[in-house]
Amino acid sequence: MATITDVAQMAGVSKNTVSRYLNERGYISEKTKTAIQEAIDTLHYQPNQIARSLYSNKTYLIGLVIPDVVQPFFATMTSRIEDELDRRGYKMILCNTMHSSSKERKYIDMLTANKVDGIIIGSHSIDINYSDINAPIVALDRYLADDIPVVSADHETGGRYAARAFVEHGCRIVVQLEGFSQVKTPSSARHRVFEQEMYNHGIACFTHELRLNQFEFSTYLATADAVLDRYPDADGIFASDLVALAVQRQALSRGIRVPEDLMLFGYDGSFVYQIPYPALPTVIQPFDDIARTIVNVLMRRIAGEPLDGMSYVLPVRLSE
Amino acid sequence: MATITDVAQMAGVSKNTVSRYLNERGYISEKTKTAIQEAIDTLHYQPNQIARSLYSNKTYLIGLVIPDVVQPFFATMTSRIEDELDRRGYKMILCNTMHSSSKERKYIDMLTANKVDGIIIGSHSIDINYSDINAPIVALDRYLADDIPVVSADHETGGRYAARAFVEHGCRIVVQLEGFSQVKTPSSARHRVFEQEMYNHGIACFTHELRLNQFEFSTYLATADAVLDRYPDADGIFASDLVALAVQRQALSRGIRVPEDLMLFGYDGSFVYQIPYPALPTVIQPFDDIARTIVNVLMRRIAGEPLDGMSYVLPVRLSE
Repeated sequence: MATITDVAQMAGVSKNTVSRYLNERGYISEKTKTAIQEAIDTLHYQPNQIARSLYSNKTYLIGLVIPDVVQPFFATMTSRIEDELDRRGYKMILCNTMHSSSKERKYIDMLTANKVDGIIIGSHSIDINYSDINAPIVALDRYLADDIPVVSADHETGGRYAARAFVEHGCRIVVQLEGFSQVKTPSSARHRVFEQEMYNHGIACFTHELRLNQFEFSTYLATADAVLDRYPDADGIFASDLVALAVQRQALSRGIRVPEDLMLFGYDGSFVYQIPYPALPTVIQPFDDIARTIVNVLMRRIAGEPLDGMSYVLPVRLSE
Repeated sequence: MATITDVAQMAGVSKNTVSRYLNERGYISEKTKTAIQEAIDTLHYQPNQIARSLYSNKTYLIGLVIPDVVQPFFATMTSRIEDELDRRGYKMILCNTMHSSSKERKYIDMLTANKVDGIIIGSHSIDINYSDINAPIVALDRYLADDIPVVSADHETGGRYAARAFVEHGCRIVVQLEGFSQVKTPSSARHRVFEQEMYNHGIACFTHELRLNQFEFSTYLATADAVLDRYPDADGIFASDLVALAVQRQALSRGIRVPEDLMLFGYDGSFVYQIPYPALPTVIQPFDDIARTIVNVLMRRIAGEPLDGMSYVLPVRLSE
């Protein structure tokens, strides 16, 4: 079994540098990081977790609580977060809450019982008082409580990008589809900015709200039909990618031309926007940055270190 | 905290029945199962894992090792397997192997060190000798070793369904896209049957092989272009859903009409086949059955009980 000394030797750095890399402490150049990670991969090095656990009373397990990993945004985030945790010698326990309302509570009980070292929460519960929990939690794109840090993409800029596209296309009546409003998330800023921009340009803007935990494509198709029935004169629809794709499919099935009769614009950037031809124009979230930031913030909370802030907003970009 | 007695009382059954439900032992009617699960959910009951661990020297952790949870088949399986494990009081540690070749080996080391109770493997490693591992493993749609049970959908029937569609459509030249052939999986039966059926009906059939761990949509688009360039006269393409969707998109971008000029047929049935209009015709795998069977077989292996067999093949169906 490879030791930290073997890794240091192969990477041509000191043991202390490898240790700092593993614990994400202090500055290390990208070149050195790559050399260390390559040595770790080549030697199949793993931090000795049993020894680490004995000394530290830690489990090196992190819970990731999300509605459902089938949803492409959560699938992408799960993949990236797992990678980031693995680099730091942590394993990830995955919890999908959508099909069982008691699961999120169980995970929080596990945390309280010291069975995981921290939890990342991106789920949609509305009946848990998170500020009662005195343990390391970081929120993925959700407002849980004032003392729980939140990491998200820059929804405001995303809303502005989308608005510009509808203005430039000459739309007159636009509908935006929004998540269930009782769940407090940074995405509400996206819809607020979008509506304001529509108002500023004299474009009529209507808002349609999704249900709690509505994440399955089949239910999006039904919602798409309802929206097309209710707003037959709309010439633009703004929604998260999978919802926009459902509207596109139902519109095409009615003989509506996209984008000539109805322009669609998405928000998310997981791979699915590329599936139809032409691809759905969308706002792409920085999945890697979000994952890295979430894990860094969680590691600081676990280590009891002070944070730089309670809100981390990361830049979005437009699809080509 | 709710006890097993509370659950039994609310469900109107004996403690013994609840215990049999939790451990998946003996016959219980569907009605009773539902009543018990509802009581468990309502009462937020969780099997006392610390006590269970002390008596049993078990961790109640299961590793799920897959190439990448972003891929819709693995996302769907991960979601369903997590649900099945949760019902039995187990947590799931997720491991994506695609971006780090050493990760699968690390998981197997964890298993050997008794840090997880069992592993479900659906990844694509070709350099690990699985038969050396003397511990509970079940394979998801992969042949790992003679003594490791495999659970998969009925690829043969899937291949036959697809073949019938191409025959009925009157195709003359068909290309099938196949996974990397050095990875041994039950899917090879699908392609063998498909080719045979094409031969039986006098249809020319060519096979194009994907690379190892080729799972990202952007790389499928490049593969689609290569296939369309190489077989410009093909009038049918059979591939797993995401690959078929990439071919559809690139074909449409070239002005090829689908299905008039080029018929596409998929295999998988995760939600993505519904995204385009018209939806991709495909073979739908029984995700819930696969998950339930995998977890049942793994539980038997963990309990040291004999298995009914080493290969579990579950029925597929056609999309509408």
